[in-house]
Amino acid sequence: MLLPEGVFIDGRSGAVPNANERYVKPVTELRGLYRDAAAFDAYVAQNPAAVGYEVAGFRREGADIFFGTTTMYPGKIGDEYFMTRGHYHVRRDCGEAYYTQSGNGVLLLQTREGETREVEMAPGICAFIPPDWAHRSVNTGAEPLVFAWFCQTTAGHDYADILTHGMRRLAVDRDGKLAIVPNPGF
Amino acid sequence: MLLPEGVFIDGRSGAVPNANERYVKPVTELRGLYRDAAAFDAYVAQNPAAVGYEVAGFRREGADIFFGTTTMYPGKIGDEYFMTRGHYHVRRDCGEAYYTQSGNGVLLLQTREGETREVEMAPGICAFIPPDWAHRSVNTGAEPLVFAWFCQTTAGHDYADILTHGMRRLAVDRDGKLAIVPNPGF
Repeated sequence: MLLPEGVFIDGRSGAVPNANERYVKPVTELRGLYRDAAAFDAYVAQNPAAVGYEVAGFRREGADIFFGTTTMYPGKIGDEYFMTRGHYHVRRDCGEAYYTQSGNGVLLLQTREGETREVEMAPGICAFIPPDWAHRSVNTGAEPLVFAWFCQTTAGHDYADILTHGMRRLAVDRDGKLAIVPNPGF
Repeated sequence: MLLPEGVFIDGRSGAVPNANERYVKPVTELRGLYRDAAAFDAYVAQNPAAVGYEVAGFRREGADIFFGTTTMYPGKIGDEYFMTRGHYHVRRDCGEAYYTQSGNGVLLLQTREGETREVEMAPGICAFIPPDWAHRSVNTGAEPLVFAWFCQTTAGHDYADILTHGMRRLAVDRDGKLAIVPNPGF
């Protein structure tokens, strides 16, 4: 029988002690996400063990709601801030909520038809992600960006489209300030 | 087209400025929830405008995930702390997550088959509510208890069972401390 449970979420560190799904994404595995390949190579040569982000999820067989945290470390490669791979959901009827707990960033979103939007990520803002909008989070601050996410257990992650084509817009540092610019490589 | 949105949640007050579903539940509408009818009558005579709790929801047509806050005011009627009505979901395959933002309380849960559980509500604890477990939150502290909830848009609320029969267990004050006791009236 599926039992109720209290799941502690540390909003500062993103730790979820009784998560049962976890992964750590080293920067070395994010080759191709950043436009500036030389800057990427220089970064990983200097920081071979750097972690881009990590994910902790509380998943229960038979539950419809799946939740957890993503903890994104601060950093930049070229003029691009550290970002997640970005994904659509496999189930096109499934959206998500990203509730920022600490840090600062921006959520980049796009549809298959070419619409784009951005939503600020800051403590207290819960980003509503409608079904079938690809989403990538970006840490634009100097501290870890931690958000709690809530979606359906069966939503599924489809990373292939964004890994292959990138996103239509980039979140870049322009003289120390965030700018959202068209992706010349899209 | 359904668009992404940043939804601010005030974890102290429970305010959600761009919520589009709201209700306020005055204590006067909660007659029958509390065992001690004389204490209830005395309370509402002295506090005719008292609010038990209020709910703010961000619902979008076409979205699968629905979220919002519940803000429960502190108080007691007889030895029972202020509580919500409690509900099952209409869709028996739908659970929920209750992520406490401030205050302290306890979540009472039960199945139709007679299982009961309690989950502590305190900042940082996200209560996992499995499908088809009735749930009632109770504010056991001196401050407002605020939690953010996340469920499917189509889960639906079924209040009738708990309003008619009550819950199997009560959260009561015993010499200033929370006690979970069998409900003699169940």
